[in-house]
Amino acid sequence: MKLYIGNKNYSTWSLRAWILMEKSGISFEEVKLQLDTPQFYATLKSVTPTQKVPCLVDGEVTVWDSLAICEYINDIYLSGKAWPAHKAEKALARSLAAEMHSGFMALRNEMPMNVRAARRVQLSENAQKDLERIDQIFAQQMNEFADRGGWLFGAFSIADAMYIPVVLRLMTYQIPVSAAAQKYIDHVMACEALQAWLNEGKQESEIVEQDEAGEPV
Amino acid sequence: MKLYIGNKNYSTWSLRAWILMEKSGISFEEVKLQLDTPQFYATLKSVTPTQKVPCLVDGEVTVWDSLAICEYINDIYLSGKAWPAHKAEKALARSLAAEMHSGFMALRNEMPMNVRAARRVQLSENAQKDLERIDQIFAQQMNEFADRGGWLFGAFSIADAMYIPVVLRLMTYQIPVSAAAQKYIDHVMACEALQAWLNEGKQESEIVEQDEAGEPV
Ligand SMILES: N[C@@H](CCC(=O)N[C@@H](CS)C(=O)NCC(=O)O)C(=O)O
Ligand SMILES: N[C@@H](CCC(=O)N[C@@H](CS)C(=O)NCC(=O)O)C(=O)O
Repeated sequence: MKLYIGNKNYSTWSLRAWILMEKSGISFEEVKLQLDTPQFYATLKSVTPTQKVPCLVDGEVTVWDSLAICEYINDIYLSGKAWPAHKAEKALARSLAAEMHSGFMALRNEMPMNVRAARRVQLSENAQKDLERIDQIFAQQMNEFADRGGWLFGAFSIADAMYIPVVLRLMTYQIPVSAAAQKYIDHVMACEALQAWLNEGKQESEIVEQDEAGEPV
Repeated sequence: MKLYIGNKNYSTWSLRAWILMEKSGISFEEVKLQLDTPQFYATLKSVTPTQKVPCLVDGEVTVWDSLAICEYINDIYLSGKAWPAHKAEKALARSLAAEMHSGFMALRNEMPMNVRAARRVQLSENAQKDLERIDQIFAQQMNEFADRGGWLFGAFSIADAMYIPVVLRLMTYQIPVSAAAQKYIDHVMACEALQAWLNEGKQESEIVEQDEAGEPV
């Protein structure tokens, strides 16, 4: 099984699929491609019609798009365990994952993931609203699950895979959060698989101009 | 079971959830709220934290976001039958659904759904790329499935729920497509459930300024 990903410093969508697979103990070959290079497109041309990462090739099956990859892994390798078991919690986890997948545009545009940097940004009103919603989600879930495993639904789930890149954006741009939301950030940042991703990302030196936002702190 | 939706003339996201439920013969109460009115927000305030439609309330379970609602309905009411049964087809259907859910921003912004209108628009390069990708998806699926049921994967699936609103955009803005892609459009437009939605949408007279794009034809 091959997972094509982008630079660990920048690629939020790649991180989602990668962290779910890593945390689930699934063995896979990681193929890292430098974003925005001719080799990136040359390699992906014959792999996926979207020419984007992440993309998973599992024998004769090709799956692209981070959320679809997570659902596929859950279906085929995890017997459904990557979502909470309880019906209402599963519905909520899926709502949060789909909300992230289709929304938070201002936050994404104004605070690109850049794990090796420490920056300050001026945020639009929409980005501030996005941050308020993020805080609300983290805080609500922690009020219920902080002592029951520490992930958004206690045990690690696809919802975490979808929100971990946001945690990294909060770190880079040094965004203050509520005490309850901070519990989630602390839990995420203590994750060993994530630390391994970050260590590699911090050693990367390639620059993608459009993902370099804000003023150095 | 209550499904909260927006104006049938404009609300693409509402249509996705509604058409899946309608086509699956699931009985539900439809609560239509006029977008962009105080009553819209007043009603949704106690229903969903995002204050957006669609939102499904099923007893003690609340699900928001069109894709999450589709997955929930599939899980709880359709025993998984709203995705293709074959592993590789299911993976492809999920890839296409997630690709739509998180992408096609230019197409969405420049060609808002407006079923009662006939318009012409000047499209950006990005929107044109979006349209090429749409044509490619429709054509490829029809080459395989036009004679095996006519939907993207033969039988109706969540992938159709996600792409039907795009078909309506193609109609409003009179976008020419390839012959293979046209087969899908014809199949979609012959769907009775969709015709019922369209008939109601065409009778609506409320105007949402930001969704009125292009020049009348
Ligand atoms: N919705 C997709 C988005 C994938 C995406 O946009 N990936 C970026 C890198 S993070 C990419 O491959 N960009 C290359 C390009 O657009 O040229 C997903 O969830 O996987
Ligand atoms: N990602 C959401 C998007 C929902 C959405 O943006 N709905 C629009 C109407 S089509 C809405 O409720 N807008 C109200 C507002 O933003 O004030 C989904 O798939 O359901």
